[in-house]
Parts: sequence; structure tokens; C-alpha cells
Amino acid sequence: MDIAQIMNNLKNQKPLIHNITNYVTANDVANILLAADASCIMADEVEEVEEITSICDGLNINIGTIHTHKIDALFKAGIKANQLHHPITLDPVGIGASSLRRKTIKSLLENIHFDVIKGNISEIKAIANHTLTHGVDALQLDMITQDNLNEVIEFAKKTALSTNSIIAISSAIDIICDGQKAFVIYNGHPMMSRITGSGCMLSALICAYITANLDHKLEACACAFLHMDIAGEKAYQKMVDDHVGTSSYRTYLIDYISLLQADDIIKGAKYEIR
Amino acid sequence: MDIAQIMNNLKNQKPLIHNITNYVTANDVANILLAADASCIMADEVEEVEEITSICDGLNINIGTIHTHKIDALFKAGIKANQLHHPITLDPVGIGASSLRRKTIKSLLENIHFDVIKGNISEIKAIANHTLTHGVDALQLDMITQDNLNEVIEFAKKTALSTNSIIAISSAIDIICDGQKAFVIYNGHPMMSRITGSGCMLSALICAYITANLDHKLEACACAFLHMDIAGEKAYQKMVDDHVGTSSYRTYLIDYISLLQADDIIKGAKYEIR
Amino acid sequence: MDIAQIMNNLKNQKPLIHNITNYVTANDVANILLAADASCIMADEVEEVEEITSICDGLNINIGTIHTHKIDALFKAGIKANQLHHPITLDPVGIGASSLRRKTIKSLLENIHFDVIKGNISEIKAIANHTLTHGVDALQLDMITQDNLNEVIEFAKKTALSTNSIIAISSAIDIICDGQKAFVIYNGHPMMSRITGSGCMLSALICAYITANLDHKLEACACAFLHMDIAGEKAYQKMVDDHVGTSSYRTYLIDYISLLQADDIIKGAKYEIR
Repeated sequence: MDIAQIMNNLKNQKPLIHNITNYVTANDVANILLAADASCIMADEVEEVEEITSICDGLNINIGTIHTHKIDALFKAGIKANQLHHPITLDPVGIGASSLRRKTIKSLLENIHFDVIKGNISEIKAIANHTLTHGVDALQLDMITQDNLNEVIEFAKKTALSTNSIIAISSAIDIICDGQKAFVIYNGHPMMSRITGSGCMLSALICAYITANLDHKLEACACAFLHMDIAGEKAYQKMVDDHVGTSSYRTYLIDYISLLQADDIIKGAKYEIR
Repeated sequence: MDIAQIMNNLKNQKPLIHNITNYVTANDVANILLAADASCIMADEVEEVEEITSICDGLNINIGTIHTHKIDALFKAGIKANQLHHPITLDPVGIGASSLRRKTIKSLLENIHFDVIKGNISEIKAIANHTLTHGVDALQLDMITQDNLNEVIEFAKKTALSTNSIIAISSAIDIICDGQKAFVIYNGHPMMSRITGSGCMLSALICAYITANLDHKLEACACAFLHMDIAGEKAYQKMVDDHVGTSSYRTYLIDYISLLQADDIIKGAKYEIR
Repeated sequence: MDIAQIMNNLKNQKPLIHNITNYVTANDVANILLAADASCIMADEVEEVEEITSICDGLNINIGTIHTHKIDALFKAGIKANQLHHPITLDPVGIGASSLRRKTIKSLLENIHFDVIKGNISEIKAIANHTLTHGVDALQLDMITQDNLNEVIEFAKKTALSTNSIIAISSAIDIICDGQKAFVIYNGHPMMSRITGSGCMLSALICAYITANLDHKLEACACAFLHMDIAGEKAYQKMVDDHVGTSSYRTYLIDYISLLQADDIIKGAKYEIR
């Protein structure tokens, strides 16, 4: 994986990402895209989303605060992005929390091709439930550890094949894979879950990375994880050094997205390919 | 009041709070809950709120950016939370600003039992107008001072009895009471009103505290005020020391929610019981 | 222009601004108004906006995340504000991005008088397209430089005359003019475009400034630009000094809005009148 080249492509192309996302973390999502040298539009009104998608380079869909009157906008934007061959990321936030979320995601998966589906292990299991005929319920786990790593990688690869998407599982150990190849990433910090939006921000960052690296989406997705995770580590160190708390951590996390250079990421990266 | 025990219960139980709140401060509300070691879901779509409430431990309702198409969600979530005996906090933001807000709150009070109603003095007066037959208009005040403290406490206790809720009045001097007992808190800092969201954050924090302390809701609510107010004091000191301004103050306020330990709160607390 | 007097009027009157704005930057907008010593209400529900506008002193409209079901609220609030002679600012965010935005703004311009219309050069060109019969398409530019400055000033003055509004163009060089007189401002920093919301915040700040200076709206608008631009310069210096990134920059920008005194602005201002 040529991290320097992948990052360079992002910084040079500055892709414009159309986000249909939740109102809780929309500001963080916009700021992380700008911090990474991408650009950002948020628009979720059904009457305009096709036009907005058309002037953008990639589409990031997040159902964090789903509303029935905005669901049509998800479909219109997604179908338009597919027509234009724009990459799309899906973050099925809280898919397990309501039947509205489950049925919306099911229908999205049937009508739209997503380049990357990113979630925690529970969310990806719920995705797999829609596309794999068996084997999901057997996966009794909520966390990825060295002990179940092989099992989760196999599950993720199967889900990638069944959805024809890159599957990205965010956990203490991250897994990013297509049907053949998996990146296993050991970076990141638990403090990232003490702030809201780190998952939403990561999905947007993935969208920017893959949009700028259409020929290497899997590597670009892994690179987005590395960028975010290493920023999360550095932000933790600075938080401790400065004797501050979780809100400063949020600020530093986005700061490091803007500050980290390819060399920092190459030096800090801890991953293997399976 | 056993502050250490009350805080411990929050940190150990990490209650999951369902928030139906405004889009202006939703991010701050989520972050303060996480800073305090609670968890957070935001969902206001009528089709899913009952399911969301069911998987949560407590419900926090805030009408800061009220929308007619979201009002049904308030009722469905509130009624479900009552059925499940989940605690509910109500923040009647700007109830005096429009007839839509007044009539919505009136109807909410008629159909849902709230464990805590928190507002500034004007908002609580508007609440009392719906439930007390007389005596409210006579209360000619916008601020709580030593001179009118007894009068306000008596008013707050009456309102608590008529609503069957804990009444929490946020002011330079805070009053938290049920029909019998009032905590009067002298902590806090005027700088808290130079940022948006300190009131919304406090309501969410109260919800987390009472949810983790079902047998001591009044004390838990007072403890949430102390946590917030002392964080507000420490944040002010740090803002001055660092020669920074109001936005850093916001960051520091949330930082101290995550940093303060029971000992800090016990040491800093200035309150009496009436 | 008496900067000290204009700022004083803002700090003494603390105008209450009604914002109908996007959910991405609503928190920043609220915080910058409070940082500048103004007050803030966000409300976009059609059933209550007239009442909200009536209790406020000024109205700030921003179409950043436009929704069809909220458009009526824009009209009701705007018409009410006109009736009450409250100042109104319009930020036609992304007017070029969709026909819904174009037709909404066109109709707003036909039905409501705006005291200030603020946008980047593309947005103001789109505004001019609705009101000038020719000459707009001829303006082949996306940036204001010394080479095209005269041409842009002439265009801005014409647009000001045709809309009967103050036209404020935000760029590396800012132009704020009515039909006769233009302020050309050389302050600001490119880093302001590496965070979301600097444009939205500026529009809200303009609204606060003109509301507190009804007899000197053009000067007040220029003063809001100076306040924002010089805060942007100081925030950049502090970001570099502290070795931090874009999210800290956002914090510092709002910090300096609260910290800057009239003397700082007078000393830092680089502008001319044409």
C-alpha cells in the first residue's frame, strides 16, 4: 500500500463529498473533511439531492438521525451516484436499534451499490443478516480480539462478497476487506469512543479517500482508518500532556487529521494483510 | 447527600439516555453525556422513538427547536418511558416564546409524568401557570437572590407538588426541590451563559444522574447541578489562566465534566438544604 | 467609520437575533453571537416563526440545508421582520447548487427586503442574475484581486442598487457596499476556509452589528467583517504558535470574537473606501 501516494491523491484532488448525515455530528463531519483537504456539502432535501450529488465527487450516507421524510432523499442520491459512478460509503448507524432502520438499510442495499459499508461489529452483523443466508447468528461476539480474529475476517470477507462492497469493521482491532484481502489495523485509542462522532467522521474520511483513489479503494479505505486511528493516538497523548479532558480530545483529534503527513502515518501504522 | 456514591452509580451503570433535543446543541449534549461516562442516542422520528426508548434507560426531552412534525415523537417516547418506568427530564426551552411551545408543554404535562422539569425562572413560571391556579403572576422576578430566596423556594415546592416532579431552577442561585426539600446551590459562573448549550447539557446530565440513582433522584439531580456548576467554575479559571475566550470555555467546561472526581465536587460544593 | 462606537452599540444593546439557519453550523452561529455579546434564538417551525421574530431584534436567514417543509417559515419570518422594520441578513449558501435554492432565493428577493445580502462572489453573481438584466455573465471571475477590483466594485454597487440591499462579498479581498460607497477590506486569512461555518458565523455577526446600529448599517456591516477577519488573523497566529490544527483554529476564531476590543480592531484594520 503506497500511503504517501494515496494521501497525495486526496490532497491534490480535494474531492467534494455530498453528505446525507445526522444532525448530531454534521459539524464534526464537515470539519474533518476540510481538515483532510477535501470539501463538503450537506444536503438532504429530496427535491435537490440529485443535483447536489451530480456536482459532487462522492456520496456519504449515514442514518444516525433517520427521518421518514428524508428517506427518499437517500434513495435518489444513491441511485444518482451509482449512475454517475461516484463512490458511496454507507454508515448504518444503530441499524439494530429500530425496525425502521433495518428495513431502510435492507431496501438501500437492494437498490444501491455501496463501495464501502462501515460499522461496528454489531452493525456489520445486521448488514450480513440481510445478505448472508446463514452463519451470522453463530458469530457470538461483540469485540474483535486475537482469539476470534480469523473467524471475523472470514465473516467479513463473506459479507464483502455478498454485498459486493468493501466491508470496514471499526473496533479495537479494525478489519477492512473485500472478498479476497483484509487489512487488519491495530492502531487507534479507546478515548475515541468517549466523544460523539468519531465513527461518523471516519465514514466521511473514507469517502474522501476512496473518491480520490478510485483504482485503489481498498487501500484508500485502510489508509483512512490509519489516518483517523493515528490521529486518535496522538490526540490522546496531547490530552494527557495538557491535563485536559474529552472535549479537548475531540479538538485534537480533528487537529491531527489536518496535521499528520504521510510520513507520520507510515511511521505510526501497525497493520497486517490477511 | 452521598456525592461519591451518586457519582459512582453513574460511572458504573453508564446509563443509555434517549435524547429528543434541538439541533443547535445536540453535539454538546451527546459529548457531555459521554464525558460523564453515560451513553447517548438521539432519535426523534415518530416511527422509531418507542423502540429507541425501550432499549434506553432514561429519556431527556428538550423543545429548543420544536417542529410540528416531531411533536408526536415527544408523546410516543414519553408515554413509552412512563410505561417502562424510565426516568424523564423535561427542558421547556423558550416556553414563553410561542403559543406552539406553551400548548405543546401543556399537553405533555397532561399526558406524561416527568421526573424532573428543569428551566430558568421564567420557564418554570410558565410551567407553574399550567398547573397552579394562582400565585404565579404575583411572583415578580427574573433572578433568584438572597432577598427573594424564600419566596422562590416556596413557589418551587408548590410547583413540584402540583406537577409531581422535581423542579430544578437554574439561576445564579440554583434551586432543586420536590414538595418537601430544596437544595440551594451557590456554585456556577456567569460565563456559562456566554456559550450556547449549557442549559441543554445540564438537562441531559440530570437525566443520566437520576437514571443511575433511581432511589435518590432529588439528590442525584442536585449532584448533576454541582458537577456542572463546579466544572463551570474551573473552566472559567482555566480560560483566564490561558488568556483565551468563550469557545475555549465551552471546551474546558466539557473537559471538566470528564475530569472532575467525587472529591473535587465534594470539596467545591457550596449548597444548603431548606 | 467610528469602530469603537459601533462595537459599543453592539455590546450595550445585546440584540436578540432570530436565526433560521442550517443544522451544520447552527452551534457555531449561536456561539459567535454570544461571543460578540449578542443573544440568539434558532427557530424554523412555520407555526411559531412570526412570534419568534416579533420578540427578537433582527433576523438572519441562511439556506445552507434548505428543506421544502421549512421554506414557508423563511417567508413568514421575513415578511414579519419587514413589517416590524427589523433588519434582515440573507446568506444564499450554495444558491448555484440547485434549482430549488435558486427559485427559493428568487422568490424571497421578490417578497422580502433584505438589509444585507452576503455571499462569496459566485453567490452574489447568482443574486445579481435575478435582479440585473445583463452584465453578470460577462463577469468572468471567481476571486477578487487588485486587477479586477474596480470591476467587481462597480458590479457590487449595481447589485446593491437593484436589490436595494447592502451587498457584502466575502473573498480574499472583501467588498461591502451600497449603491454609492464601498468598503474594501484586506484583512482575513485563508485558514478561515479550512473550517466549516466561517461564512455562516459572519452573516450572523453582520446581523447583530446592523441591528445594534440601525443608522449606520453599511459601516456596521464593514465592522462585522473587520471583527471576523482580524479574529481570523489572530487565530491563525495562535494556531501556529501552539502547533495545533484546524479544529483548534475554529475554537480560537470564536475566542477572538469574544476577546477583541475596539482598539484591537482599529489597530489591525486594513481597508479603504471607494
